Amino acid sequence: MRSKAAVGLLALGLGVLAQEGFPYPEGFRFWTHVKSMEIQRGHPLYEAFGGLHHIYANPQALAGYLSGKRAFPEGSVIVFDLLEARAEGQALVEGPRKLIGVMVKDSRRYPETEGWGYYAFGADGKPLAIDPKACHACHQGAANTDFVFSAFRP
Amino acid sequence: MRSKAAVGLLALGLGVLAQEGFPYPEGFRFWTHVKSMEIQRGHPLYEAFGGLHHIYANPQALAGYLSGKRAFPEGSVIVFDLLEARAEGQALVEGPRKLIGVMVKDSRRYPETEGWGYYAFGADGKPLAIDPKACHACHQGAANTDFVFSAFRP
Repeated sequence: MRSKAAVGLLALGLGVLAQEGFPYPEGFRFWTHVKSMEIQRGHPLYEAFGGLHHIYANPQALAGYLSGKRAFPEGSVIVFDLLEARAEGQALVEGPRKLIGVMVKDSRRYPETEGWGYYAFGADGKPLAIDPKACHACHQGAANTDFVFSAFRP
Repeated sequence: MRSKAAVGLLALGLGVLAQEGFPYPEGFRFWTHVKSMEIQRGHPLYEAFGGLHHIYANPQALAGYLSGKRAFPEGSVIVFDLLEARAEGQALVEGPRKLIGVMVKDSRRYPETEGWGYYAFGADGKPLAIDPKACHACHQGAANTDFVFSAFRP
């Protein structure tokens, strides 16, 4: 009986965990490509984000990028798709994925980080443990564009 | 009368020219982003295509990329969006657009280049004079993937 109860509690715990998390943003490669950048050795963010990244916006986030206000509507999801940057002759080509970062706008759910949830997933699609408050602290640098650093490149 | 006839012929000529060309692919920045690459100084294609490029596919071309066959359906349009690659600290960032290249699949219209039309437009959106046969000669290197070099990155 005890072990059954433990399994039950474990299942409940996992259920709660799944509800608190955010699902892998399936299909983001078919969202709109916003812009790209390579972070190179020597850059302050190299350890965390070295490589070639692309930014993708779901339809709500795209509306935010395209609006004059640069305020992102509820439901906006922005993906930071980080790939290895590989040298191939005199060219830089895309290597395997390192991780993806995700920003989600839900003002009721993420009041402590001013409306944005932050998540990350490994190349295998599994969630990575991150501190959303640390993410948001860095994104204060883009406070005047609703904490989003990137701008849509027409 | 003579000048009116000349104007008439000129208008006809321009009409034919417009029909023979291909329009600037408006909205391609909202198509699916396929992959990216930086062509650097010293690369054999640097003079023509140096910089950071992104490849975008319209829905027909995307179906081609995603099909096992790697054969592209009629109406496929692929855009090669070439930007300046700018150094900014220890990062590579997107500079202004240099040009776009366009491949169009229309087997009846482009029999001399095995079904593909090739076009280019300057940063101002105006057509550039190119030799489609020279484009296609280079694309022979991708003959086994319907003359398309890029592959979709999932």
